[in-house]
Amino acid sequence: MPDFFSQNYRYIGILAAALTMFGFLPQIIKTYASKSAKDISLLTLLQFACGISLWIIYGIFLEDAIIITANSVTLTTLIVLLYFYYKYGNQGGE
Amino acid sequence: MPDFFSQNYRYIGILAAALTMFGFLPQIIKTYASKSAKDISLLTLLQFACGISLWIIYGIFLEDAIIITANSVTLTTLIVLLYFYYKYGNQGGE
Repeated sequence: MPDFFSQNYRYIGILAAALTMFGFLPQIIKTYASKSAKDISLLTLLQFACGISLWIIYGIFLEDAIIITANSVTLTTLIVLLYFYYKYGNQGGE
Repeated sequence: MPDFFSQNYRYIGILAAALTMFGFLPQIIKTYASKSAKDISLLTLLQFACGISLWIIYGIFLEDAIIITANSVTLTTLIVLLYFYYKYGNQGGE
């Protein structure tokens, strides 16, 4: 990689992290506002929760603070979304 | 990190990648089957598409094949899900 980027590429990781760590936030707001979650796939939420947990562990081995921090925030938002799924999943919308 | 893990921690990354790279697959199947996507947040899909694209670039700088591969697959599934969102987003379910 060019030298210019060698000092700056981490900003790309930080921006990537900022977008994906809060990626489920619009879904949380929409689900809370509509009180309806029947179109959301529970399996997708659970699969991401397991996968994201393993990314955190992988980040610990890589000693990469960006991977650890981003995935920890995503896991937190997934837990909130799972709460709303169970609260609103079987009501409203139909 | 203990020596034992130094040769094996990448398997955790591979498992993490396997789960999250196909994380939206159950959502694709559910949306295709129900023909309804009105509870899905478009902003969440677009935010992940942008963020995942930047993770791919970050992975290229890190020269980490797991990050590049996993996020490339996720981006592909997001594009499929966006297609279904626009196809089914405003019909069915209500």
